[in-house]
Amino acid sequence: MEPSRAALIDQLLLHHEIERFHAEYAAALDEQRLEDWTEFFAEAAMYVILSKETADRGHPVGRIDCEGRGRIRDRAFALKKTAMFAPRYNRHMISNISCDPPDQNGSIRARANYIVLQVLFDNPVATLHQVGTYQDRFVRIDGRLKLAERRCIYDNLLVDNALCLPI
Amino acid sequence: MEPSRAALIDQLLLHHEIERFHAEYAAALDEQRLEDWTEFFAEAAMYVILSKETADRGHPVGRIDCEGRGRIRDRAFALKKTAMFAPRYNRHMISNISCDPPDQNGSIRARANYIVLQVLFDNPVATLHQVGTYQDRFVRIDGRLKLAERRCIYDNLLVDNALCLPI
Amino acid sequence: MEPSRAALIDQLLLHHEIERFHAEYAAALDEQRLEDWTEFFAEAAMYVILSKETADRGHPVGRIDCEGRGRIRDRAFALKKTAMFAPRYNRHMISNISCDPPDQNGSIRARANYIVLQVLFDNPVATLHQVGTYQDRFVRIDGRLKLAERRCIYDNLLVDNALCLPI
Repeated sequence: MEPSRAALIDQLLLHHEIERFHAEYAAALDEQRLEDWTEFFAEAAMYVILSKETADRGHPVGRIDCEGRGRIRDRAFALKKTAMFAPRYNRHMISNISCDPPDQNGSIRARANYIVLQVLFDNPVATLHQVGTYQDRFVRIDGRLKLAERRCIYDNLLVDNALCLPI
Repeated sequence: MEPSRAALIDQLLLHHEIERFHAEYAAALDEQRLEDWTEFFAEAAMYVILSKETADRGHPVGRIDCEGRGRIRDRAFALKKTAMFAPRYNRHMISNISCDPPDQNGSIRARANYIVLQVLFDNPVATLHQVGTYQDRFVRIDGRLKLAERRCIYDNLLVDNALCLPI
Repeated sequence: MEPSRAALIDQLLLHHEIERFHAEYAAALDEQRLEDWTEFFAEAAMYVILSKETADRGHPVGRIDCEGRGRIRDRAFALKKTAMFAPRYNRHMISNISCDPPDQNGSIRARANYIVLQVLFDNPVATLHQVGTYQDRFVRIDGRLKLAERRCIYDNLLVDNALCLPI
């Protein structure tokens, strides 16, 4: 059965809401507003960064693996304060967004591809810092989308030691 | 004459349908589901990969040039089976999507820009494998969009010999 | 108060109109149709290219700084005619688009991220020429969006001398 025009418009509105979410999430990170960034997560959210190699083998352990917004916040600020943190600009490009309709609990599965470009202050050109996919589950809290789960699965075989800022 | 609000929403729905098509097409390729990938084409589809340099000179011959889904399938699997095929991850980023309204036959002309990023297993970082534009003609078959023509026109002057996976 | 469905659809239509604007603007530049490119600006438009480093320090002076479409046109063609202009292809990828609703004067603030990829004819691969954000103000003239202001704020610390084509 073909979905109705109203249903198609609903799906489009949801897709657009997720697209705006990504743009705001990325702006918070790229402007290094880490406190704002933690607000994109639900209280019991899971945030994981892991390699595609690891994900494909079904290994559950990520390079960064946080359960709960408290731990997400701790990790973000620990990273920022480390002595290893050389000044840099990151820039997210997010595309190939897709999402499923909400399930019976209102959860929304979504995917997107990302590139994080990086400029280090001792290197004038931009480099490809990380390339991968977001595998997300959104929930709606007080009318706004929040991440209940975000898995950042990167294609790179290595990420330099200084994975200082979230993805 | 200004288009009506209903006509604007129709155009938006078509644009969104194409955007989802690109996301699914790219996911099939990036996950190396080549059989699924061939399903994005109409039976008599044309699939061509050619350089911008060649396209601008009006030369008709592409680096890869397939007519019909059978040949598209053959080519995909021939590429995959070649001994030259070192393990790799590809990742498509597709943006700058635009489309025209359907013509009187229901064909839809569309364009998009793409980057294909690549991680080779002997090189830990991601590289810019190919940059270019899709020049597409879509048709609707049983309610779903299919590619009747896809021209992948790449800007690179050279593409390494191992153009193993489709674009 | 939740926005109405009609208001959400209005916002979506505006976002889509801006997305199409970006695609057409980028196509004009990437196909080196500079005369067409100037048509994307309002008569009294401001067009500035400046580094993030400069923008963050609140310095007003850009690397390129044009007031009025006449100067934008002059600058574009001066750049194109310079002897320094080696043949090249540029390719814009624009994503992370966001926009505010029109203000009481009908002005629309919008933001997007961009990558400009470049192929120089003495180098077969594509490189990351410039990465940054557009900070825009649009106005509507005879029913069409035009740029009243575009600030291209690039992350790179340096841009090679041959910043020949607009961004």
